[in-house]
Amino acid sequence: MRILVLHGPNLQLLGRREPDVYGSDTLDTINRVLTEKAVALGVEVDCFQSNQEGDLVTCIGDAPGTYAGLIINPAAYTHTSIALRDAIKAVDLPCVEVHLSNISQRETFRQVSFTAGVCIAQIAGFGGKGYVLALEGLVEHIKKQ
Amino acid sequence: MRILVLHGPNLQLLGRREPDVYGSDTLDTINRVLTEKAVALGVEVDCFQSNQEGDLVTCIGDAPGTYAGLIINPAAYTHTSIALRDAIKAVDLPCVEVHLSNISQRETFRQVSFTAGVCIAQIAGFGGKGYVLALEGLVEHIKKQ
Amino acid sequence: MRILVLHGPNLQLLGRREPDVYGSDTLDTINRVLTEKAVALGVEVDCFQSNQEGDLVTCIGDAPGTYAGLIINPAAYTHTSIALRDAIKAVDLPCVEVHLSNISQRETFRQVSFTAGVCIAQIAGFGGKGYVLALEGLVEHIKKQ
Amino acid sequence: MRILVLHGPNLQLLGRREPDVYGSDTLDTINRVLTEKAVALGVEVDCFQSNQEGDLVTCIGDAPGTYAGLIINPAAYTHTSIALRDAIKAVDLPCVEVHLSNISQRETFRQVSFTAGVCIAQIAGFGGKGYVLALEGLVEHIKKQ
Amino acid sequence: MRILVLHGPNLQLLGRREPDVYGSDTLDTINRVLTEKAVALGVEVDCFQSNQEGDLVTCIGDAPGTYAGLIINPAAYTHTSIALRDAIKAVDLPCVEVHLSNISQRETFRQVSFTAGVCIAQIAGFGGKGYVLALEGLVEHIKKQ
Amino acid sequence: MRILVLHGPNLQLLGRREPDVYGSDTLDTINRVLTEKAVALGVEVDCFQSNQEGDLVTCIGDAPGTYAGLIINPAAYTHTSIALRDAIKAVDLPCVEVHLSNISQRETFRQVSFTAGVCIAQIAGFGGKGYVLALEGLVEHIKKQ
Amino acid sequence: MRILVLHGPNLQLLGRREPDVYGSDTLDTINRVLTEKAVALGVEVDCFQSNQEGDLVTCIGDAPGTYAGLIINPAAYTHTSIALRDAIKAVDLPCVEVHLSNISQRETFRQVSFTAGVCIAQIAGFGGKGYVLALEGLVEHIKKQ
Amino acid sequence: MRILVLHGPNLQLLGRREPDVYGSDTLDTINRVLTEKAVALGVEVDCFQSNQEGDLVTCIGDAPGTYAGLIINPAAYTHTSIALRDAIKAVDLPCVEVHLSNISQRETFRQVSFTAGVCIAQIAGFGGKGYVLALEGLVEHIKKQ
Amino acid sequence: MRILVLHGPNLQLLGRREPDVYGSDTLDTINRVLTEKAVALGVEVDCFQSNQEGDLVTCIGDAPGTYAGLIINPAAYTHTSIALRDAIKAVDLPCVEVHLSNISQRETFRQVSFTAGVCIAQIAGFGGKGYVLALEGLVEHIKKQ
Amino acid sequence: MRILVLHGPNLQLLGRREPDVYGSDTLDTINRVLTEKAVALGVEVDCFQSNQEGDLVTCIGDAPGTYAGLIINPAAYTHTSIALRDAIKAVDLPCVEVHLSNISQRETFRQVSFTAGVCIAQIAGFGGKGYVLALEGLVEHIKKQ
Amino acid sequence: MRILVLHGPNLQLLGRREPDVYGSDTLDTINRVLTEKAVALGVEVDCFQSNQEGDLVTCIGDAPGTYAGLIINPAAYTHTSIALRDAIKAVDLPCVEVHLSNISQRETFRQVSFTAGVCIAQIAGFGGKGYVLALEGLVEHIKKQ
Amino acid sequence: MRILVLHGPNLQLLGRREPDVYGSDTLDTINRVLTEKAVALGVEVDCFQSNQEGDLVTCIGDAPGTYAGLIINPAAYTHTSIALRDAIKAVDLPCVEVHLSNISQRETFRQVSFTAGVCIAQIAGFGGKGYVLALEGLVEHIKKQ
Repeated sequence: MRILVLHGPNLQLLGRREPDVYGSDTLDTINRVLTEKAVALGVEVDCFQSNQEGDLVTCIGDAPGTYAGLIINPAAYTHTSIALRDAIKAVDLPCVEVHLSNISQRETFRQVSFTAGVCIAQIAGFGGKGYVLALEGLVEHIKKQ
Repeated sequence: MRILVLHGPNLQLLGRREPDVYGSDTLDTINRVLTEKAVALGVEVDCFQSNQEGDLVTCIGDAPGTYAGLIINPAAYTHTSIALRDAIKAVDLPCVEVHLSNISQRETFRQVSFTAGVCIAQIAGFGGKGYVLALEGLVEHIKKQ
Repeated sequence: MRILVLHGPNLQLLGRREPDVYGSDTLDTINRVLTEKAVALGVEVDCFQSNQEGDLVTCIGDAPGTYAGLIINPAAYTHTSIALRDAIKAVDLPCVEVHLSNISQRETFRQVSFTAGVCIAQIAGFGGKGYVLALEGLVEHIKKQ
Repeated sequence: MRILVLHGPNLQLLGRREPDVYGSDTLDTINRVLTEKAVALGVEVDCFQSNQEGDLVTCIGDAPGTYAGLIINPAAYTHTSIALRDAIKAVDLPCVEVHLSNISQRETFRQVSFTAGVCIAQIAGFGGKGYVLALEGLVEHIKKQ
Repeated sequence: MRILVLHGPNLQLLGRREPDVYGSDTLDTINRVLTEKAVALGVEVDCFQSNQEGDLVTCIGDAPGTYAGLIINPAAYTHTSIALRDAIKAVDLPCVEVHLSNISQRETFRQVSFTAGVCIAQIAGFGGKGYVLALEGLVEHIKKQ
Repeated sequence: MRILVLHGPNLQLLGRREPDVYGSDTLDTINRVLTEKAVALGVEVDCFQSNQEGDLVTCIGDAPGTYAGLIINPAAYTHTSIALRDAIKAVDLPCVEVHLSNISQRETFRQVSFTAGVCIAQIAGFGGKGYVLALEGLVEHIKKQ
Repeated sequence: MRILVLHGPNLQLLGRREPDVYGSDTLDTINRVLTEKAVALGVEVDCFQSNQEGDLVTCIGDAPGTYAGLIINPAAYTHTSIALRDAIKAVDLPCVEVHLSNISQRETFRQVSFTAGVCIAQIAGFGGKGYVLALEGLVEHIKKQ
Repeated sequence: MRILVLHGPNLQLLGRREPDVYGSDTLDTINRVLTEKAVALGVEVDCFQSNQEGDLVTCIGDAPGTYAGLIINPAAYTHTSIALRDAIKAVDLPCVEVHLSNISQRETFRQVSFTAGVCIAQIAGFGGKGYVLALEGLVEHIKKQ
Repeated sequence: MRILVLHGPNLQLLGRREPDVYGSDTLDTINRVLTEKAVALGVEVDCFQSNQEGDLVTCIGDAPGTYAGLIINPAAYTHTSIALRDAIKAVDLPCVEVHLSNISQRETFRQVSFTAGVCIAQIAGFGGKGYVLALEGLVEHIKKQ
Repeated sequence: MRILVLHGPNLQLLGRREPDVYGSDTLDTINRVLTEKAVALGVEVDCFQSNQEGDLVTCIGDAPGTYAGLIINPAAYTHTSIALRDAIKAVDLPCVEVHLSNISQRETFRQVSFTAGVCIAQIAGFGGKGYVLALEGLVEHIKKQ
Repeated sequence: MRILVLHGPNLQLLGRREPDVYGSDTLDTINRVLTEKAVALGVEVDCFQSNQEGDLVTCIGDAPGTYAGLIINPAAYTHTSIALRDAIKAVDLPCVEVHLSNISQRETFRQVSFTAGVCIAQIAGFGGKGYVLALEGLVEHIKKQ
Repeated sequence: MRILVLHGPNLQLLGRREPDVYGSDTLDTINRVLTEKAVALGVEVDCFQSNQEGDLVTCIGDAPGTYAGLIINPAAYTHTSIALRDAIKAVDLPCVEVHLSNISQRETFRQVSFTAGVCIAQIAGFGGKGYVLALEGLVEHIKKQ
């Protein structure tokens, strides 16, 4: 079982960007911890970051056949990208949405999520740990089907 | 470390209520699995269900001194109870909000959450498994502080 | 065939409360007339009033097995209680919503009904007579199924 | 005592139109059952259907002198016709609004009613039976005045 | 110079309908007074009332060639008829909108006017006198062009 | 009988200001024509222009005792001044609101009128002629009382 | 195969009405070109224009049995008629909505369409040519079923 | 003269709960100061706190006969409880609404008050002192009637 | 300790203006009672009324150095004046907002307050007595600092 | 005459993606059928698909000089891309917007179109056939100019 | 070339008022620096501050003939004054709007600007320097015409 | 000191695109003039244009270390890109937003700016000159820190 993990715009800056909001872990650290968890669960993860909405859309479109599920942190695109929503819906793979911060405590425009409605589940506010919990939940979900 | 787990209105019906939305596990099953996880993590959990908004408010108000954190599934009260929000804010304990279903896929009035803004994190859509992930995340959060 | 009749908050004041809006019948009178109608229709009714949202929720949750249908006047909770909505939906019994006054002629916030969407039918504006018409309609509905 | 019963647009199609929403009774059947109920109540009913908003407005304007009350199912015009509202208000006869389906479960634009605010009562969701209950309630209302 | 005067739905009831809002003059009285004013101004007026939106639309569409201007009291259709708006715009004749009552003091849904934007002027609140003032203003407007 | 005529902000610029919207008559011309009409009607008019919201409020507050009615073109203050509304309501004199242009054809923020709801009537779109029609209507209104 | 073509209010004025928005073709020209296209496609078309909402509703209600599909330009009724929507839905024939102008470039109130949601397809902005394209598309759609 | 003082949800936590927002006085202190003021004014006060919306509703319903007026701090229920509003309206006793903090400086959802419209007066922002001022104002109000 | 008391537009009319809403006390009476209370509290008050938004703004801007606090009844400017809000915020003196009537029971546009958010407290609905309570509360507030 | 055909995000998945909504034709099939139609009409078409908003913007910016018109299916970008709108407006070439599905029957957020207002025409709901109709309409439009 | 510089309400407090938002420069300093810049550019500036909306309106109305352009910081009136907007539009002189703070970072009600739409340009967030940049831009704009 | 200047989508078309809105200068001209100004101010500027939201995000993320400040004209992305907002916020460099046209005079959807709230200042409406003023203001701002 192989899981695709997608990180959206500005997440390449993790560790440097507003550490009080997003924590001090870099994206590499998060990916490494996630990979260790994958090993523990007996699955594989591929991690990909892009600032380009279109690249993320393409990645998701190419996922079927290779991946059994998706974990995505769409970052700012959560609130503006119908294209990402359509991509997730189109490929029909179970997808979990992760946010580092608790977006419910932030600006009004972050309360709208185009992607949440096509994901099976959402985790927000646990920082990097959220990806690990998402992986555990997603793997169990896929095994149950 | 002791964690208080609160289940809101109608959750006493779990297993019987719309199983395609909420799953077929009863509340007892969920509490038992959660207690097992607590044991594994070396913590204690107390589980309480009520259909009364005021009882949940009182419970939260009484928590400091006894509990190190809260896990709450406010169910319908998520969207209507400012009293629950005020209670969580007043006691200043880390709280994780759990929903069995992915509320982002449901009616518009379920998109509003009064409680999310005062919780540290949210998990939705993983069914009963969501409580287990919440406990794992909350315990790690409390240990880090 | 047994029908559960639920009266929501402040209805214990009927007869004394704004008689020009709600009429001069007391709740006892309404229940007695309703019981007579039930006898005429060959069914039984149990009447229950509560000011507590949670008690009404519990009542509805306990109804299956005992009752074949519900008649509810949620009063103020019509417009604020998603918990009542969830309870009615969860038990999957035919439910008729009754209002003494014509709520369409009143404040804007009374134009929103959380419960109407999960009831099979609604009657408003007929005063105490509305319960009698609701019972007649509900019994016919149940017999047809 | 004579009651005018008005059926709005598309109701001539009853029985053929979306039977899962509107039931399989034709308008003739509904009118016949209603007439039988009128006989039982010792009153007379005249039934009229039109797809023309203006014809319904004219009918209502001509009602005083001949009729003691109105029963109206304005169908689609419920949500768009201020002219119907003005007509009902102008003639100052007691009027009951009937809907076959439970409009609370349908599209948002059906949640607005221009006519409800000038009727004494509303019944929705009981199919053809709703007219019968409306007649019973209206006759009692007129006798009480 | 010939002016077409159009009266919308329910105005056939004038004198009988809510006299405290609309005054006690009948439509015939208003038309007679208006005709006298027309004579005084050296113009002709034709008056037409209909409850049918479509008849009013047809009338306006037929006006060019016969009439030099329009006076219209669209009554309830003011707030709901884009067809009337399109008709007035299509014929490109100067049109004055008249309302008997001061619609600014009434329900919110009467604050919207589809027709006002395509008329040259509006008069509201002067009762039947409003038509006379409208005629005087319209005739002066046409003569100035 | 004495009538107070109030002109609001920027009306001192009439004749120079956007002549295609407001016409080429100056305020002096309008006041002179209006005075001539007053003579013809056997009444007196006093005309006052101010750019100060507070001066207009004071003027209206001082009107009772001296004036039998008001004609006001509140210009921009129509849409922003609750103080003017309160002043007109407080003095309880019949007031007619006049606008030179047809405000229904202009920006959305000009569709809101705080003053219209406390005036007996409104005239818009007839340019300077509107004041003359307003005077005629107001004098007739006062005489009828 | 026979197709019913319905033209809504004010379309009898085509060619005379705002030619820069609606083009200079009359309705007769459009119907003739459409009939020629029908011949080329081996189908029949009947064209009907009415300013009466109710007549259009009746026409649609009578269509099943005679017609295999509908082409409708509801004009102003697009934005105000739920009755037309209900009629199209009730008869369950494939229907294509046509607009001469590109309504997306016009007033906000023309952005709402009650009919679009119950049509299979929409064409806007191609002038009279739009009906021809609609016919071609509709015929192909019906043949595919 | 006897006055009923009602404290809503979470107020049992006063002194411990967000002291920078709500002050450091406990509810007992507030009640004691209020009782002293009552003595000074020659009236009696009974103080009652509940987290249950329904208990507060019942209390108010039982007040007539025993109490001459109400002072209520509905806390979170201010913004969500139509049941409380209905109760206050039903008993028709003069009621003053008190808030410890200046709710105008807080979240948007606290700007809505269901209870304010049925109270005679409101005091907000004076902390515990607000109850004392409310009592003084209420007693004067009752004496004046 | 010296307190500046500001009365906004139309308050010069008190006693004459809608006595059922605003009471029959004149502004002079209110100021005299308030001055007596000030003497009792050992402080001084200066009272100033203006219909000019700008004069009130200037007064507030000049207050620091002379006054220890402000009491303001902004009347209509409550709902429209950001300039008053900015002035109160700029001078950073404790300010209490007073309204004679309970504005929560009035028009929707009176539900918005620009000034409340920069005041420390609000009192509404107690008529002239409200100023006295405000003074008592403000003086206690200033002494506590 | 050369026409540029642009396909937006996720359209590379056609045939595989939700076939009940988008049909079972692949993008290659659609392009081939379109090319055949172009040959029949004596024009050329170039087809381009991209998931990148910026690439589509660049393509449109480069079109003048090479192409006489555009056909675009902006897919998800219809509802979110002002950049595409600006590009179409900037190049001032006639553009037709095509949608495979009838977007009027879908989610609310798909009812907003940034691109429609700068296109000459729109076709929605005809599946792949829509492109063919668009080409026919666009070519006739260009020839007429 | 002579430029009129207008400062709106509360700007007389600059230097004393919330220095973290508005900076520590007084209005005199800003005017002096601006005058020096004017000398450098070979133009003249006259600076005027008022808390009275009407005085600013009058000033603008008197500007043509004396001034070639306007620089205005309408402060709070930016968001509430249609009278200022009308004045700027009426005189038809190029006007630049300046704000000391970045109003985009402040309260929602400061996001609305009535004046921006009739100015040629806007500068916000540069403190007193903003006036200098505005002057430079405005002078270049006037010279180019 | 080095400043990064970013031009958003469609700005490569400057000079060709709607010259009445955006002026006739090309982007090269603007960049050259800006570079000359930089030389005069003793700083360096690097100019970059992209139609890709993601490329702009990446550029900003890479800026710290190389650049002391940013000037950005986000063009269409101003109104739709939360990713750009997050990037500017993340790097914590002073940023000035520039618009060629006065966006306050344009479509409603251009009144929303996601980027303005994280910039220190904004300049709009001065055409290419706006960049020059922005550079002058930004350099002074950086030197002051």
